[in-house]
Formats: sequence, C-alpha cells, structure tokens
Amino acid sequence: MTGTPGRVLVTRGGETESVHLVDAVVVGLRSGEEARFGDPERTAFWRSSFKPFQALPIAADGVARALGWGPRQLALAAASHAGTSVHVQLAVSMLADAGLGPADLECGTHPPYDREAAEEVLRDGRSYSPLHNNCSGKHAGMLALAVHHGWPTAGYIEWDHPVQERIRRGLDRWLGVDPLALVWGRDGCGVPTACLSLRRMAVAYARLGRAAAAGEEAPAAIVDAMRAHPELVSGPDRPGTRIMEVTGGRLLAKGGAEGVFCAAGPTEGWGLALKVRDGASRAAGPALVATFEALALLSREEVERLAGIARPPVLNVAGAEVGAIEAELRPVTGPATGQP
Amino acid sequence: MTGTPGRVLVTRGGETESVHLVDAVVVGLRSGEEARFGDPERTAFWRSSFKPFQALPIAADGVARALGWGPRQLALAAASHAGTSVHVQLAVSMLADAGLGPADLECGTHPPYDREAAEEVLRDGRSYSPLHNNCSGKHAGMLALAVHHGWPTAGYIEWDHPVQERIRRGLDRWLGVDPLALVWGRDGCGVPTACLSLRRMAVAYARLGRAAAAGEEAPAAIVDAMRAHPELVSGPDRPGTRIMEVTGGRLLAKGGAEGVFCAAGPTEGWGLALKVRDGASRAAGPALVATFEALALLSREEVERLAGIARPPVLNVAGAEVGAIEAELRPVTGPATGQP
Repeated sequence: MTGTPGRVLVTRGGETESVHLVDAVVVGLRSGEEARFGDPERTAFWRSSFKPFQALPIAADGVARALGWGPRQLALAAASHAGTSVHVQLAVSMLADAGLGPADLECGTHPPYDREAAEEVLRDGRSYSPLHNNCSGKHAGMLALAVHHGWPTAGYIEWDHPVQERIRRGLDRWLGVDPLALVWGRDGCGVPTACLSLRRMAVAYARLGRAAAAGEEAPAAIVDAMRAHPELVSGPDRPGTRIMEVTGGRLLAKGGAEGVFCAAGPTEGWGLALKVRDGASRAAGPALVATFEALALLSREEVERLAGIARPPVLNVAGAEVGAIEAELRPVTGPATGQP
Repeated sequence: MTGTPGRVLVTRGGETESVHLVDAVVVGLRSGEEARFGDPERTAFWRSSFKPFQALPIAADGVARALGWGPRQLALAAASHAGTSVHVQLAVSMLADAGLGPADLECGTHPPYDREAAEEVLRDGRSYSPLHNNCSGKHAGMLALAVHHGWPTAGYIEWDHPVQERIRRGLDRWLGVDPLALVWGRDGCGVPTACLSLRRMAVAYARLGRAAAAGEEAPAAIVDAMRAHPELVSGPDRPGTRIMEVTGGRLLAKGGAEGVFCAAGPTEGWGLALKVRDGASRAAGPALVATFEALALLSREEVERLAGIARPPVLNVAGAEVGAIEAELRPVTGPATGQP
C-alpha cells in the first residue's frame, strides 16, 4: 500500500529551496500494528545498514572469543566510522590480532569522513589509507573471520569467497527470505550488498533487536556492542551516534549510504527502515527523529536533546545560519502486513 | 502548467538505487515555442546561476576598462571556480588591481572544490583562505566595483550596500519584473540571491544571450568571456565547463548550488533553466545534456563528446564502476507562456 511520502524541506530565508521525499516503515509496534509513510515495499540497497548482520559471524563463529575481542572491536566491525585516530588505531589492532596488516584490506581508500581528521593526515605529511575508509573495521572483521576458519584472505570481498558465503548463510532467518532470491550489488567498499524492500529491512532489525533482548549470544554481542560504543559506530554528532547516545543505548540505529537508515528498539521489539528517495544523507536524520517523535518512541527530553539532528541549520560559508532542514511527515498506523 | 518531471536515475548493479526529480523549461526556441518538463513555474533560489548578471556592472560601469581587465578576469567574476592555483592567482591579481587584498573578501573560507588542489594546500603546510572559495572572483569583482565608484568596501555583501543595490538596478530588464517584488535570501557566500521561477530564469538567460549576440557591450563582454574561458568559470570535467568547451563556446552554461542550472544559445536565442528538486548537483549535468539532446540543441558529435557528463559512472571507493547516473526525460513542446 503506497501512501504520501514524508518530506524533508531545506529552507533558505524562510523559503523552501529543496525537497527530499522519504519512504519508511516501522514494524513490531507494541500495538501489534505497523506505521508507515510513502511506500514500504520500495526496494533499496541495504548499504551500511547491513553491517550488524555482516558482523554476526564474528560473534557466532567464536572469532571474537578466540581473539579476545570485546564490545569495542565488535562495534567497529559494524561501523561506518569517521576515520579519527581512535577508529584507525582500533582497526590496526584488530588486523594485528588476526596476524594481518592494512595491506590486506580490499576496501579502497577515501579520506576520513571527519574533516579535522582528514586535514590532520595531510598536514602531518601522511597519506590517506584504507584504514581511513569508514568500512575498515568491517573489513578487519571479515579478514579475521577468514583467518579463523583457515580460508584464504585474498579476495574476501568477492561474492563467492567463503567469507561472503558465510555472511549470507543464516540471513534468511532475519530477512524471511532466501538471500539468493534477492538482487545483490557491489557496495562502495567492494563487498556484496543486498537490494530489498524497506519492510524486509525493518523486519530484520526488529528480529535482531528481539534476539539481542532475549539474550541470544551472537545478536546480543553485536547489538549491545553498538549501543555501548555509539562513537565507534559512526562519529561525533552523526545521527546514529547521537540517537544511541541520547537514548542511553535503548535504541539501535545504523545509517547507510544513499539515505538509508535502520533502527530498532530491542526491548520494545520494533524495527524501522527508511530511505530518502534521492539518496541525500542530509535528510535521513531529520526524517528519523521526526518518525520517532510521531510514534512516541522517544521521550520528550530525548527529542529535545536531538534537536540538532532533527532540525540542523543550513549555514553559509562564513558560518551564518541562512536556513534549516526539517521533516514534515505523518506516519499512518495500521494492521501489520509482514510478521516481524 | 505542470507536467511530468524529468527523472535522473542512480543505478547500482542494474537496479535503481536513488531517483532525482527535475523541472525545466527552455524558452525562445526557433519555432517560437517553449519546451518544458515538470513545473516551469516552480521557484528556486538562483544561486550561482545569477553570477553573469552580478558581473554585468563591472563591464557596464567601466570598471574592467579602468583596471585593464579582459575576458579572463570577467570570466572569473562570473565563476564558481574549483580553487586551483590558476583561479586563486587570478583572484589575487584582481584584488591587487583594485588596490585590495584577500583580507577584504567577505565570502568566507571553504576548501577548493578541486580535491587535488585542496590536498596540496594542506600538504604544503598552508591553510585554506577566502581565495579558495568558489566565489572569490565574484567577490573580487564586487570589491573592484565598490572602489571604482568610491563606495566603502566593507560590508559590500550586505543587501543595502551600494554594490548590491547597483546589481539589482537594471535586473528588471532581464527578469521582466521589479527585483524588489521577488523574495531574496542570503547565498552561501553571503551576498543576496533571488528566489524566482524557472521560467523567469530561462527568460533572463535568453535575453542576456541575445543581447550579447547583438553586440551590446556589457552583456557581450561577460557572455563572451565565459564562453572563451570555460575552465575559469568552473573547473576540469565540470558540466558547465565541458558543455562550453565541447560546443566551442556556442552555448553558455552556468550551474548553481542545490541543483540549479541555466544555459543559453546566444546566437540561436533560447534560454534554459532547470532545478533538481532535492538539490543534488550530481543530477543536473545528466538532465541538462539529455534536455539539449531531446531538443536537438547539440550536434550528434557534441552529444557523444559529452557522454561523461550525460551518464557519469558510479564508482566504488576502489574505483570500480558499480553503476551509473542517467536521465529519463521527455520535454513537451508547446506555445510560449512568457516573452523571452
């Protein structure tokens, strides 16, 4: 059922300059209903919102136990990190734990997302490396999984490498569908990423959160690690990090490229997925917080503390506020279509 | 009259990942008709597509003649440049010609758009400066206008400064409306920018191009300067630069922030304006070239040479092609609503 999409308005001097359209669905609400706006059947690549599931085998197969990895390492394995020195050093140590080094990473190089960190690298006469890639923790985890099982490390990003096969095995439990029935593409960091409906993403997050809340070992290890170390999962002032910080880890939130965002309330049992149709990440945070607020999934105090994510200012180059980004959306609540 | 908007699809592995919606209108076609898709009455801030008009007083008031400025300086005064050393050195010399320096710029500082140039600054132990701001040439021109007329230079970016008043004076000729009847906002670089319909933008470009083609001094100086130095107006491989290069200066093209693009065929007499509704600049080039192609405003050879602008690849971090950006649009031709 397709409804009116959410809108995120970018204003300048009181006028609307640009508009983003957003689809979303929240499944597993306490009422037994689901909430949605736009088209929950719309498909999108899962991108980095897939990461908690890509990290599961590290906990499930005993890699973390064997290497002495705790919540910090597991959080980074599920992270889209900002490339600060904290993130980079942790990735280095994870590779070293597996007997490997940065040269084994196949994620490619991009500057740290954190602008200060990026500038510092060049000022210090160093160069960007795959360690700065926001996915370096995920890749370190994948490499450790390969070493643990005695698989070759080269080519671990390829579709038919045992690492990627292992990640796909067991996905049907979360997705409710054989992963081979989905369309897959290549993610920005080179690994396979699935194309699936927002409803399926939301169901997967609801199921993962519930499994963690029920104390199941591997899901709890990943979900609790992310909620315990939100600053490792993304970076300062990023929507996912702020939401997990402000809620004291009651919520799980993980964004992805092209305007995808997923979240879960593990104890409450719900799962959420949204996608900005045009792929703009600037619209995802405002849409996410507005959805939480509309469905009373945040307390009033939490909403207030997330004002900077819900309504970020548009600044000009000199730093003056010339407008704002703000969501206008109204979730419709109704009978659940899927089974979370 | 509102029609179906153009669509720009961002694909990954053959699937559509994100979609941009685009409105556009082309006025003053040889047939006497106009072409459009989406809503030509939609309003948007003109942003940097306003720059040729902001540069006109430099030619009209004799500033360029007095300072010995030729096409290179006039092109930079109308530019959204990439901040390479060529752009920066020219901006420095323009300020020096007016007896001023970088400290007089009120545009604020951002890193050069050109990534190599940005990295070089930091590697060399230097800092970003207002000279790297893509608008530094425009600001140097505004400052020279102030000095020429004996106006104070401080505060030249403010609404009621004589420089901005001078720029607004005479705009009604191009816009067909008193500029004070429009809503204005503050642009990224601090100066006033108008909010107006796409049709009005297109009419303004058609009129400017025709005035230039008719040999009127100030319009010809600015328009010819931009077409003679496309690499100064933007930067390597940017849509506007490539379009002016490939057409050997037959077309004028100038993009702006938030997905605005304007163009003109001065000899042919038409003017074009488009806006990506969500503000994504990545969609503007493909939509622009597809519109030109649909209306036969480019030769087949020019279309082929612009393939990299019309259908840029989506690359992953490691540089592998994982998708593409491509426009799907069908302009509707009909009786002209406005009078170009």
